[in-house]
Amino acid sequence: RIMRPDDANIAGNVHGGTILKMIEEAGAIISTRHCNSQAGEPCVAALARVERTDFLSPMCIGEVANVSAEITYTSRHSVEVQVNVMSENILTGAKKVTNKATLWYVPLSLKNVNKVLEVPPIQYARKEQEDEGKKRYEEQKLDRLETKQRNGDVIFPIINPEPHTVGYSQSSLIHLVGPSDCTLLGFVHGGVTMKLMDEVAGIVAARHCKTNIVTASVDAINFHEKIKKGSVITISGRMTFTSNKSMEIEVFVDADPFVDESRGRYRAVSAFFTYVSLSKEGKPLPIPQLLTETEDEKRRFEEGKGRYLQTKAKRQAQMQQAAQH
Amino acid sequence: RIMRPDDANIAGNVHGGTILKMIEEAGAIISTRHCNSQAGEPCVAALARVERTDFLSPMCIGEVANVSAEITYTSRHSVEVQVNVMSENILTGAKKVTNKATLWYVPLSLKNVNKVLEVPPIQYARKEQEDEGKKRYEEQKLDRLETKQRNGDVIFPIINPEPHTVGYSQSSLIHLVGPSDCTLLGFVHGGVTMKLMDEVAGIVAARHCKTNIVTASVDAINFHEKIKKGSVITISGRMTFTSNKSMEIEVFVDADPFVDESRGRYRAVSAFFTYVSLSKEGKPLPIPQLLTETEDEKRRFEEGKGRYLQTKAKRQAQMQQAAQH
Amino acid sequence: RIMRPDDANIAGNVHGGTILKMIEEAGAIISTRHCNSQAGEPCVAALARVERTDFLSPMCIGEVANVSAEITYTSRHSVEVQVNVMSENILTGAKKVTNKATLWYVPLSLKNVNKVLEVPPIQYARKEQEDEGKKRYEEQKLDRLETKQRNGDVIFPIINPEPHTVGYSQSSLIHLVGPSDCTLLGFVHGGVTMKLMDEVAGIVAARHCKTNIVTASVDAINFHEKIKKGSVITISGRMTFTSNKSMEIEVFVDADPFVDESRGRYRAVSAFFTYVSLSKEGKPLPIPQLLTETEDEKRRFEEGKGRYLQTKAKRQAQMQQAAQH
Repeated sequence: RIMRPDDANIAGNVHGGTILKMIEEAGAIISTRHCNSQAGEPCVAALARVERTDFLSPMCIGEVANVSAEITYTSRHSVEVQVNVMSENILTGAKKVTNKATLWYVPLSLKNVNKVLEVPPIQYARKEQEDEGKKRYEEQKLDRLETKQRNGDVIFPIINPEPHTVGYSQSSLIHLVGPSDCTLLGFVHGGVTMKLMDEVAGIVAARHCKTNIVTASVDAINFHEKIKKGSVITISGRMTFTSNKSMEIEVFVDADPFVDESRGRYRAVSAFFTYVSLSKEGKPLPIPQLLTETEDEKRRFEEGKGRYLQTKAKRQAQMQQAAQH
Repeated sequence: RIMRPDDANIAGNVHGGTILKMIEEAGAIISTRHCNSQAGEPCVAALARVERTDFLSPMCIGEVANVSAEITYTSRHSVEVQVNVMSENILTGAKKVTNKATLWYVPLSLKNVNKVLEVPPIQYARKEQEDEGKKRYEEQKLDRLETKQRNGDVIFPIINPEPHTVGYSQSSLIHLVGPSDCTLLGFVHGGVTMKLMDEVAGIVAARHCKTNIVTASVDAINFHEKIKKGSVITISGRMTFTSNKSMEIEVFVDADPFVDESRGRYRAVSAFFTYVSLSKEGKPLPIPQLLTETEDEKRRFEEGKGRYLQTKAKRQAQMQQAAQH
Repeated sequence: RIMRPDDANIAGNVHGGTILKMIEEAGAIISTRHCNSQAGEPCVAALARVERTDFLSPMCIGEVANVSAEITYTSRHSVEVQVNVMSENILTGAKKVTNKATLWYVPLSLKNVNKVLEVPPIQYARKEQEDEGKKRYEEQKLDRLETKQRNGDVIFPIINPEPHTVGYSQSSLIHLVGPSDCTLLGFVHGGVTMKLMDEVAGIVAARHCKTNIVTASVDAINFHEKIKKGSVITISGRMTFTSNKSMEIEVFVDADPFVDESRGRYRAVSAFFTYVSLSKEGKPLPIPQLLTETEDEKRRFEEGKGRYLQTKAKRQAQMQQAAQH
């Protein structure tokens, strides 16, 4: 669809969150269609996980986003979907790859939302495709267990913080979940949640460096807990790490189903977003270093540095591999 | 209401689809109100058909759209509504007629969506008004039967198409039907469908001529099939004909109610949109000729030429009639 | 959240209605959460009244709106909420107070919408806080009875009105209430209604003075009647009074639940909005005087003058009090 002014920041760059939302909608459509392709209980595919996503080139207002999705692996209870986003300037005809994303969906019964249904198997062109898919499936399963354990942190407001400290840029946003945010099952679309997370992360990034910022990448996000219509969600973000040219922001989503007597507030999602700062000519600008004060902040900075170096090493390995072929 | 940036293209012209959506909302309100004006089963009026609509002058961001609707004929089971749209520049006070549209609605019971209720008859000021209305009613009834027959076509993607061929500009868009797209009965508003159709047609037109394009007219649209909440709709458009100053685009809407076991994908609506290309000063620009390759494309081009010449002849006849009075 | 192009007028000033909608959403969240904080019947807090609200400084596109809410008083069946809105330019870090608003909510049972539940009492830091709250509670109760009595007026269209008369600028807007306008109970959010009221009042103001106008204040609004999903609401506005630098506009909201057989059209809300006209440099411009023609218009002008002088006197008293401290 055509990118509109409301999809973009003041500099005309489309928000990463808008793109994530489009990706998730495409993934939800193709996997729901697949899971309903055989006679049996009707179901809706719910987002369980999004793999790490890089934003390769910015998209602008007036461009057309071409989103294509393909099912690349099925396990007994889950579907892996690959989504590609291309930006197309329809006046010049120029096309660029914006994103490639991998999402995992689980089919939930329309009649009983707590029942996970079986997924019809897909046919693979080659045996290796199935084996590689199985490997990705096992890897993400492990990773999901890990994040489940570190989900306990809370962000407190800081009075009169110094510039460039963690407390200075941390931000939060509250949203009441309405009907247009939800699937047929009455739960929030994963894409809606990711769009709000990107909005908060973007505010944190802009507060820190006070320039035009854009989403560079999003780490893998796991959706452990559904969020019900009528809930209030609090999305909080804090900066964890800065390199010379990038900022890492941790975002938490807490849900409060306050009209539901049976449970209290809970952590629904958390993720790391990486932002870069761009000059008017679209060149990356240097980032002011994050000032860490407490032990926890220093520890998180080191952990962020670890993730940053690991990603950098992975990218270099891929480039070498690509050069050899 | 006031036209906002999101209602318009980059050149500031409000999308024809936004105007069609406002027209349909006005029509749905007045006809639902009329059909509920007598004691009896409560109902919602569903759009059955929109007559050919010309966009007489463009509307811009910041202008106020004045929409007025009037019931002009009632048959036993349908209501004819005339809707007029005026654009008003509230700073200068200047007003211009943007559109005149004729819509047909059918009252469906709130309790049983497959039951068509009876329409309370309206009073006519003069007997001729009733007779003319009856004539329009019979004409559209015939026309609806015709379109029902030619609804079988499908658009396939083309690899590496040449510029200005049909395959070069053809486009499609997928949309998941959410609650805010639907009426109280859980079916998509006709106006929502028309807005999406105009969006796809506009992308086809811009891809073909790579300039600022605006909707000039929409041929009669028949809504044979309802689209249910939770369906996925695919809207596809391809260019069928170009004259020196206009492009005709055929748009199909296919619905896939994939959580509903009882039926597969079906063609819900199809229509022809005509676009013109405007210079920065708002003057019409010449259109690159459409290159037809297959027999089907050549046939559709000739059919489009027939519609173009027929419309031109009709307009000239009207102008002569007007000059004689 | 970040202010987007669609939240603002052409001059880049965020609509007062957008701010009122954010305020109401914050109030609804905090009071619903409070009323559900004790075990008992789950409920949704419905807006009963908004006290007079002044817009102290304009907010612009790209700024972040910080909304904070606090419960300041509870009676047996109602909650008073104070909401503060700050605008923050995240590039410069500059913050300004935009609004302070006081809202009253009433908890309605999720199971039976006509049942008003009891409100858990809050703890006060000092006894005087409770006494002052009780005074405010009694005052608003009286005021609500008063407005209930004057709710009978209707606005008729005028043919060919003279510039600067009441008929010249009066406007109305029709809206079909969809699911995204409604709370969990299926009734329109108070904030949605206020946003539409501000939109109509803004059109009246712009038609009268044909310049860039902004909301300066909103008088207390009482929500006597709920509006159900599927209703059609007509929002009408007419100018009642002009001073040298301000315009007062009266706005009515009429609801027509036309699929509900049991009741006809009724007056749901009414309120007075005050607008000022701003030059390109943001300075207030003189307002053309409203030309009153009928006896009713002259009476309303005098009443508006009374409200204007009363507000002016109150503000001067507050400033003197502030100067003495």
